[in-house]
Amino acid sequence: MGEKEKVTEEELLKKAEEPAKKAMEWHPFYRGKIEVSPKVQIKSFDDFGVWYTPGVAKPCEDIHKNPEMAYEHTNKWNNVAVVSDGSRVLGLGDIGPEAGMPVMEGKGLLFKYLGGVDAFPICLNAHDPDDIVQAVKWIAPSFGGINLEDISKPKCFYVLDKLRDELEIPVWHDDQQGTAAITLAGIINGLKIVGKELDQVEIGLIGSGAANLCLARTLVKAGVPEKNLMLCDSTGLLHPGRQDLDEKTTPEKWKFAQKTNKQQKEGGIPELIEGKDVVVAASKPGPDTIKQGWLKKMNSDGILFAEANPIPEIWPWKAKEAGVRIVGTGRSDFPNQVNNSIGFPGIFRGTLDVRATTISDEMHIEAAYAIAEVAEERGLDEESLVPTMENTEVFIRQAVRVGLKAIEQGLARNEISEEELREQAEKVIKSSRDKTQRMMKSGDIKEAPDVDLS
Amino acid sequence: MGEKEKVTEEELLKKAEEPAKKAMEWHPFYRGKIEVSPKVQIKSFDDFGVWYTPGVAKPCEDIHKNPEMAYEHTNKWNNVAVVSDGSRVLGLGDIGPEAGMPVMEGKGLLFKYLGGVDAFPICLNAHDPDDIVQAVKWIAPSFGGINLEDISKPKCFYVLDKLRDELEIPVWHDDQQGTAAITLAGIINGLKIVGKELDQVEIGLIGSGAANLCLARTLVKAGVPEKNLMLCDSTGLLHPGRQDLDEKTTPEKWKFAQKTNKQQKEGGIPELIEGKDVVVAASKPGPDTIKQGWLKKMNSDGILFAEANPIPEIWPWKAKEAGVRIVGTGRSDFPNQVNNSIGFPGIFRGTLDVRATTISDEMHIEAAYAIAEVAEERGLDEESLVPTMENTEVFIRQAVRVGLKAIEQGLARNEISEEELREQAEKVIKSSRDKTQRMMKSGDIKEAPDVDLS
Repeated sequence: MGEKEKVTEEELLKKAEEPAKKAMEWHPFYRGKIEVSPKVQIKSFDDFGVWYTPGVAKPCEDIHKNPEMAYEHTNKWNNVAVVSDGSRVLGLGDIGPEAGMPVMEGKGLLFKYLGGVDAFPICLNAHDPDDIVQAVKWIAPSFGGINLEDISKPKCFYVLDKLRDELEIPVWHDDQQGTAAITLAGIINGLKIVGKELDQVEIGLIGSGAANLCLARTLVKAGVPEKNLMLCDSTGLLHPGRQDLDEKTTPEKWKFAQKTNKQQKEGGIPELIEGKDVVVAASKPGPDTIKQGWLKKMNSDGILFAEANPIPEIWPWKAKEAGVRIVGTGRSDFPNQVNNSIGFPGIFRGTLDVRATTISDEMHIEAAYAIAEVAEERGLDEESLVPTMENTEVFIRQAVRVGLKAIEQGLARNEISEEELREQAEKVIKSSRDKTQRMMKSGDIKEAPDVDLS
Repeated sequence: MGEKEKVTEEELLKKAEEPAKKAMEWHPFYRGKIEVSPKVQIKSFDDFGVWYTPGVAKPCEDIHKNPEMAYEHTNKWNNVAVVSDGSRVLGLGDIGPEAGMPVMEGKGLLFKYLGGVDAFPICLNAHDPDDIVQAVKWIAPSFGGINLEDISKPKCFYVLDKLRDELEIPVWHDDQQGTAAITLAGIINGLKIVGKELDQVEIGLIGSGAANLCLARTLVKAGVPEKNLMLCDSTGLLHPGRQDLDEKTTPEKWKFAQKTNKQQKEGGIPELIEGKDVVVAASKPGPDTIKQGWLKKMNSDGILFAEANPIPEIWPWKAKEAGVRIVGTGRSDFPNQVNNSIGFPGIFRGTLDVRATTISDEMHIEAAYAIAEVAEERGLDEESLVPTMENTEVFIRQAVRVGLKAIEQGLARNEISEEELREQAEKVIKSSRDKTQRMMKSGDIKEAPDVDLS
């Protein structure tokens, strides 16, 4: 026991260093993860007279007459800005826009390889929330969608809400809806395995940050009664009697304090866990944020997601020893990774393909069901509730269902059929993967150098 | 004669329609001219742990410690924003940022194919000059350089000057320095053919807009005495007595009015042309802006650049009939095209490779000499003063000489040798062209459909 744990922790630490070592050698080797590439024929230099002056004037005039034509004549339909001010990059805190670039480029890489989306990093030297809003509004004409990334709270909420109000293109904050979608997919499939129903289970959320507040809203919209939901923050359990919360400074948190835990149960994490079927922690890195003893008071067949990075709130094996049946974390080296990269590429694919004006909660909930469904078709298993990135179908399925949901909700400006949605998503996603693999084969993308991992 | 002219005009008009026809079918066929592509190995999904979390944290921290490392760990070294508010797109006027997208994407295509530069279109929904400045300053962390494009005057001057003052990355306005560089290259080689010297010829500039004011400054820095220079605008010849000009609203124009034509010769275009060895018109579309009779008063072995688009200020054959020896225009279907695409890709290549903080006039003048030199090596000819885009060496040569000039002027943050400069430029430019050609061969870039041109 002690032995197992010790070995595993050491192994983990060593393993955790490997990507970092590779990263420090491979980043300067490639000097950038994404590039801007031609996607049109250049058979002769005369073709430039079509792509640039004089020919290009005609499509310009056409868009001037009807701005929607930008979606036909340019790449706007598939362009997404990955916008960050670098104020909360990974677990590194406020390291600024330049230092955020490697992450935003990485996000662009995932967007393209997994979802066929052309996502370009826009790292902003603007930090005031209204300045960030203004910057995004100014650059919006080039883009079909906006992905906000690694912006600290509470400004991330304000920026998201304001931009959603003021722009006609979808604006997404992955730490909110993205994480909520993947977690919901995990919960849906976890409950299938243990044979419980979403509208009957008791759910506790540890931490009331961007991720869990959005998850709470998502769960309610997906059918969890508010009375079955409990949240806590670093002060303790949320309930209507919490005088330290107010509607103005923390509106979302305040709202859930009014609507959940009406019996005004007091306490902290242990009290929250007690009697729950599902617990989702998105709080502070462990491994001792959640103690084994506390988990023993969960209901039988308990499901726990401990999502803190890099160390989950409790090591999975410890949670299992305490009787929790299904455990997920944010890490790829444990079972049931809650991995946002399973979600946003497919969600954006569908959103862009129907030219939706926003990504509603119902759309990301639909994505959660699509993720859960693909995992179920492959055969459910307590050690793998959700598919991995290698599964192409999971992105295509999300694109189709997210697109159809947008159309159903009247949010789509391009109403296409299920078949067209699938065909488009399949074509774009597969060609993106194939191109990259072909470039590796041809040597256009060189092989990364070996790295001494000893 | 009359016959020849008639046929040619008809042919020209018909030919001028071809690119437009193709453009309207090919733009929606490809739906965008450039895309965002992976440029790193994705051998297995574990590689994403290097490109994204957790591995990516290390390069982020490294940049946080030393911001210059962004040039090593990310694509910033090669990223250029093509920024426009769409207020003066081609000859179409203020058609807005969405309608400007096809041009900015086209510029991105030229940047990549000819110079290996990753240029991304940023079409701004900001129109006030200070807003444009603010927008560019906010997005600057993602970019190694800024290319301002199709912004109306006079705000284009203000925006350029202000951004050059306030940013540490190079900011370029192609309509100013780009056009000046190509025109100077043409003048240099034209003078070689007729056997005159730059510091001895009389030069007249028709039109005092962005292009010609920058050209005037360029000519003076390249060795043309101010007394040999004359400019005119729509009011008439510039001279120190012009009361309608003032230092505040038109500072550049006012400056040249003080320094040229001190004898205060009055008049318009005919008086400007008289007695000149070289005339450059960047004024209003012809074909009758310049009349044959006026050109007869040029000095012998005259050189004329009539750069208005789409119709030059006078048809080239008419100018030749009037005795002008060498004629250039802005059109690809006449000899001696003054084509900016010959310049900016190579100029930016060199600028980025030495990580210059700006692009000085001396740097674009160096590019002009590089262009002229490559044309001369190929064998000079009055019908082709400058190379075409098919010539790869012209871009490499500019990169090398522009980079060396930046180093010489103390503007480079990355002082590399001439050999390294050449090697880098060659590698990046050739691999860009080769990749695109390979993608066409593999079918990743599909062939454009046939277009009915009848």
